[in-house]
Order: sequence, then structure tokens, then C-alpha cells
Amino acid sequence: MPFIKIETTREGVTREQKQQLIKGVTDLMTEVLNKDPHLTHVVIQEVDLDDWGYAGEQSSVLREKGFTADKK
Amino acid sequence: MPFIKIETTREGVTREQKQQLIKGVTDLMTEVLNKDPHLTHVVIQEVDLDDWGYAGEQSSVLREKGFTADKK
Amino acid sequence: MPFIKIETTREGVTREQKQQLIKGVTDLMTEVLNKDPHLTHVVIQEVDLDDWGYAGEQSSVLREKGFTADKK
Amino acid sequence: MPFIKIETTREGVTREQKQQLIKGVTDLMTEVLNKDPHLTHVVIQEVDLDDWGYAGEQSSVLREKGFTADKK
Amino acid sequence: MPFIKIETTREGVTREQKQQLIKGVTDLMTEVLNKDPHLTHVVIQEVDLDDWGYAGEQSSVLREKGFTADKK
Amino acid sequence: MPFIKIETTREGVTREQKQQLIKGVTDLMTEVLNKDPHLTHVVIQEVDLDDWGYAGEQSSVLREKGFTADKK
Repeated sequence: MPFIKIETTREGVTREQKQQLIKGVTDLMTEVLNKDPHLTHVVIQEVDLDDWGYAGEQSSVLREKGFTADKK
Repeated sequence: MPFIKIETTREGVTREQKQQLIKGVTDLMTEVLNKDPHLTHVVIQEVDLDDWGYAGEQSSVLREKGFTADKK
Repeated sequence: MPFIKIETTREGVTREQKQQLIKGVTDLMTEVLNKDPHLTHVVIQEVDLDDWGYAGEQSSVLREKGFTADKK
Repeated sequence: MPFIKIETTREGVTREQKQQLIKGVTDLMTEVLNKDPHLTHVVIQEVDLDDWGYAGEQSSVLREKGFTADKK
Repeated sequence: MPFIKIETTREGVTREQKQQLIKGVTDLMTEVLNKDPHLTHVVIQEVDLDDWGYAGEQSSVLREKGFTADKK
Repeated sequence: MPFIKIETTREGVTREQKQQLIKGVTDLMTEVLNKDPHLTHVVIQEVDLDDWGYAGEQSSVLREKGFTADKK
């Protein structure tokens, strides 16, 4: 029953990282809500930097200015 | 007024199949809710197999193991 | 694998109509793409008329002017 | 930058469970992708059982038949 | 053709403000992309503070700590 | 806190137009709801013409018939 959409900027997410995200979110739904993994779907949607706006600017422009989404 | 999003894995959906999905969903909205087709929008979103997780695994991995989304 | 979201205005959709929409969309995914119903999820999201805008106006205002979403 | 939507059936999710889901998903984005929590938004969307279809049926009907979304 | 979803916390958005958001977004699509307003749909989705997580916390908890979403 | 998704057909939207859309929507959220731009995220999602259905037809087919989404 749970459907989880993860939207994030397209900045080199690897196949292994996607596996970790899928497993991590599915396990979380089981641990917290006891959901059956066989009823749990996760979709990862990567968004081009030109298409993600933050604080009124394109992320591609923000990246050119040195602003990243990394943990400070 | 209705907006319908169909998200499915990117596994060779043809142009004709997309036409059938669009027509089928639009007709359904008219038959069941009497909605005007000229107010009905349908979006099909294909998702790469690496990006769709089911039961904690990537669909690409599941496909390698022989698990498909086909009707059993 | 398919996940289908049906967004429509909150205008008295009955429980039976929701059953017809769910069955109709699920059958369509099987007929056109041979998808397993046990991997097919459908979510219906009703939206208040104040919250759905069309042609720059709220649907609630449009309804007051006699404009409906019914098939003409 | 990440935006995560968790859609699940409205079946008594408590405030504490929502806090666990929000914290768990946010931590996961940091651990796997090093995302800044101050750029990470999570939205939980509970869906009425009449509005979530699985295998062509309403979840409310499935629950009446004893079928739950709990881990088997 | 454009479909715009505005998701925001449920914090007293008035009917008039919703009209302004719908008109403003529709006008923007026409000014920038020359889209026909009669093909433009806007949906506003208000999310309870318990259901919107930011920086790993529920917005309801953040509000209790005095953190708001208002322009600083 | 606001998250705005703009879905539109993939018909040559330029980088500059995307900047205008992002800035325009972010400014609108501040003007109408006084939202902090640093809590406002905008995602633009371009959809192939084969994948966007209107009035029961694919937009690609509609375009071949001379029907556009431009303001009349």
C-alpha cells in the first residue's frame, strides 16, 4: 500500500545509492508502520538542475555560484 | 477537470499502447463520472527499472532474477 | 508496478463510482500492458472546488457561473 | 533539494510514527546522498481506504475481507 | 496542457489567496510559454503541519519552537 | 514549505523561460502567502507529446492535426 516518491536533483546518483534508498525507505515503512514490503513501491525521480528551482533560482545557476545541496 | 497520472516501468510501452491507455482512461472518466473529455488530461510517466523499487529491491535486479510485472 | 493517480474535483463521487474507476483502470493496465493486478495500485484524490483552478479561476466560482465539468 | 512524498492508507498513523517517518527518510537522504536536511522536505499523504485500489478492489472492501497491508 | 500542483502547509490560506495563486500561475504560463488558459489546470494541496517534515522535524513541532515559513 | 510542480509538454521550453517560471512562481508565493523563498522549491517536469493525453488523444497526434496549446 505505501507508495513513496523520492524527487532529487540529477547529480550522479549511482545504482548502488538507488538500491540503498529503496531498501532504506522500504525497511522504514516496515519498522514504523509494519507495512508488507510486497505492497510497498518506491519511485526515484531525478530532476535536471535546470528544472529544479530553489529560492527563485535554477539549481544549475546556484551550482555555478558554488551553492550545493550537500550537508553543511 | 480530471487529471490522471499513469506511472509505470519503462519496458517497451509502444505509441499505440499509450494511445489505448489515454483513450481508455478518458472514456472511463466519461462513462463513470460523465466528465468532459475536453477537460480531461492524462500523463504517462515511464520510470527506469533502476528507479522503481518493489519489496525493497530495484526492478532491474528483480528482472535479472526473472520476476516480471506481467499478469501471472 | 503501475501506480495510477486520479485527481478530480470533490463533487459527490460515490463509493460505487470509485470501485468502477479502480476496477476500470486496473483492467485497462492488464488489457493494454498485461500488468499483474496484484502489482497495480490506484489512488483517487478528490480536490475541493476552491482548490482546483481552470482558465485562471477557481472551480467553485466557475460552478457559481454555471460552468460544469460534465460532458457537453 | 530532495522532496519525498509518502502516500499510505489512512489507518491510524500516529503523530509519533509520522515523526519517525520524517526523521528516518531525512536521515537516509543524508546518509546515502549527503543531502542537507535544511534542503530536505517530506510530505505524508494519508489516503482513505475507499480511495486506494489494489488488485482492482478498494482497500476498504479488501479490509472487510480480512486482507491487510501488514507484513505477513 | 500545463498542470501545476501547489503543495503548501495548511496555515489559514484564504479563498481569495487561492484565487490569486490560481490567477497568478495561469497568467505566468501564458506570459512565459503562451499557454492557453483553457488548457491550464492548477491544483492547490494544503498539507497538515503534522504531515510536512523539514530538516527532519514535523512542521507542527517547528512551529511550537517558533520557526515559521514566513519570509525572513 | 511550498513545493510547486509545473508539468507541461516538451515543446522547446528554453533555459531562460524556466528561470522566468521559477522566479515567477517563487515571487507569487511570497507576494500572496509571504513564503520564504529559501523554503520554496519549484520543479518543472516536461512531458513528451506521446505521453500527454487530452480529450482522449495523444498531444503528438493533436499537433499533427494542427491543435496546439497556445493561447487562442
